[in-house]
Amino acid sequence: MFDLSKMDKLSGLMRKNKIDAVVTGPSNTLEFMTGFNPVGCERFQALFITCDRRYFYICNLIYAEDMRRWFPEDAPFYVWNDGQGFHESLKKAVTDFGLTHKRIALGETIRAVDLIDMESLFSCEFVNGVSLLEELRIIKTEQDLDKMRTAARLADGVMEDLTRFIRPGMTEKEIKLKIEDLFMAKGADGLSFSPIVACGANNSRPHYREDAGVIAPKDVLLLDFGCRYQGFCSDISRTFFIGGISTEEERIYTLAGEAQAAAVKKAREGVRCCDVDRAARDCIEKNGMGDYFLNRTGHGIGFDVHEAPYISGNNERCLERGMAFSIEPGICIPGQVGMRVEDIVVINHQGETEVLNQFTRDIIIIKE
Amino acid sequence: MFDLSKMDKLSGLMRKNKIDAVVTGPSNTLEFMTGFNPVGCERFQALFITCDRRYFYICNLIYAEDMRRWFPEDAPFYVWNDGQGFHESLKKAVTDFGLTHKRIALGETIRAVDLIDMESLFSCEFVNGVSLLEELRIIKTEQDLDKMRTAARLADGVMEDLTRFIRPGMTEKEIKLKIEDLFMAKGADGLSFSPIVACGANNSRPHYREDAGVIAPKDVLLLDFGCRYQGFCSDISRTFFIGGISTEEERIYTLAGEAQAAAVKKAREGVRCCDVDRAARDCIEKNGMGDYFLNRTGHGIGFDVHEAPYISGNNERCLERGMAFSIEPGICIPGQVGMRVEDIVVINHQGETEVLNQFTRDIIIIKE
Repeated sequence: MFDLSKMDKLSGLMRKNKIDAVVTGPSNTLEFMTGFNPVGCERFQALFITCDRRYFYICNLIYAEDMRRWFPEDAPFYVWNDGQGFHESLKKAVTDFGLTHKRIALGETIRAVDLIDMESLFSCEFVNGVSLLEELRIIKTEQDLDKMRTAARLADGVMEDLTRFIRPGMTEKEIKLKIEDLFMAKGADGLSFSPIVACGANNSRPHYREDAGVIAPKDVLLLDFGCRYQGFCSDISRTFFIGGISTEEERIYTLAGEAQAAAVKKAREGVRCCDVDRAARDCIEKNGMGDYFLNRTGHGIGFDVHEAPYISGNNERCLERGMAFSIEPGICIPGQVGMRVEDIVVINHQGETEVLNQFTRDIIIIKE
Repeated sequence: MFDLSKMDKLSGLMRKNKIDAVVTGPSNTLEFMTGFNPVGCERFQALFITCDRRYFYICNLIYAEDMRRWFPEDAPFYVWNDGQGFHESLKKAVTDFGLTHKRIALGETIRAVDLIDMESLFSCEFVNGVSLLEELRIIKTEQDLDKMRTAARLADGVMEDLTRFIRPGMTEKEIKLKIEDLFMAKGADGLSFSPIVACGANNSRPHYREDAGVIAPKDVLLLDFGCRYQGFCSDISRTFFIGGISTEEERIYTLAGEAQAAAVKKAREGVRCCDVDRAARDCIEKNGMGDYFLNRTGHGIGFDVHEAPYISGNNERCLERGMAFSIEPGICIPGQVGMRVEDIVVINHQGETEVLNQFTRDIIIIKE
């Protein structure tokens, strides 16, 4: 059933940001707010919530029975059919709710082409609502953090199992499927994203997803994966060395680990996200490898695997109790090698910096 | 490598529609035009193509190595990093390419929140580019149709195998996993969408995806699935009856089948899509069940499982040689039962209406 428990906080955020309504399509954001996250298609559907706590849902007739199950019987529904398109229904809804000429914030899954259609239908000021909606969940409760601790423990366990599973000759694809099997066997609800398994030179591409490689002796193997557990995500990266490690590899890996440790050390309550990013960046730059540190130091995590707070150079937000984020500086030398160590870190409700992942950050050598 | 072979047709369409540039994010549309379809995240990335056949690609630094592999060495790239955000790079690109104040058509995967940011950065007229981009592939070549024939044959084979596999007591989830296994074993490249397996009253919801049901004796079981083969999709639906069929079930199923046959019969070269929809609708309405026919009669299919031409009441486009689409009128009685028969139909290059799916439309009774 539609959960109104987050409505107070949302109303407050909307008033503070002078927003009259928010619009969210199927997404983790919608699930966080309401408990449901329908599987959609190209047909427009969304929940509109006004700052004075009214709402309506609009969807195609083929989803009407699915969606009504989530709402009270008298909930305002606007249902359109394929022969009409959604324009007239949406126009009527926006008029009925007095939203013309109002300031409306859109969630991350609303399509630009639907916004263009909306702009031609009625006059509103549309704004980017991503930050506002992420603000709703940027501070995790103690119960949320417990779910994240469990999700992290599952990820640690999968990493541990992989040290015994992985052998040269295996394909990236095999390892990827094994990761999913291991998570399911351990009680995860699903993956938080499609695992990244990258050997050879594939790992210089941080989000490599081709799964085309075969593990060779002396390879460097990058693993990056996570699960979802009771709504909350985990995310861990480690770099394994197949049959030994060269001096140069050890130098790069040690530096990535030092940068990671420096950022974790910097990540305290009250410290700005950009300063945490800077701590990792300084460490890598002063060793002459700044050009190979491509990504932000980390991203917030919770109901989504990427959400606020972003640990990047342009984010001046200060860390607060209840925030959860990854720390994952990486070194990627194009066409050669990429390495990173990633843990999820939280500022817990005692104000301590707590690293959720316990799996070792020491050099792991996989037997040939 | 970036494939310019579709550029002539795209330029022509852009000129005809007075469009100065099209913008496509990662999508099947991008893959159709260029051969690549990157896995993205929330970081903005897109290909801009101008009507005078220039282009540039913009992406985050973490995707730069992946993306450069697809382009000639001197291709114009605009790369932004997490510490900056994409705004300045995009503004520079749009200025360099003389696109300010121009008319720009957006593809289906560009996010509304990114469009809002773009509108604050530079002045352009943004339009919905979905129809224009679908037009690029609405007419399939003979080679395309051959791939679709193979994809349909694989789907027919899976349906055939399922008649022997399905038994009462199985879960919807088990059958769903079996469908994927069967497709892979037969040589499909992947699924065209997450299969719909809906028993009991679940099938009155046309896009039911909860996979929570268990097949019971006397159930009606709706199956809707397809695969991708060399880029092209299949899509088939059938309704099975577990351990027998009641008189009322037979009446509904027969009517769904008659409506499907009437629409297939109507679907000839030169006939309007809305008239094909009307043929199915007339059949169901005259039997007093019009309120339970929720969906459009069909959708175009090809590189995407849903694309133009849509076989719906508001589409006056005429069928032409090379068009491919589903015919799938359904009868859905909320909370009770849903049934449909779906085949992919093409107007082939001899001008004939060819039904790609060969699996029987007769009543299938699964042994208890």
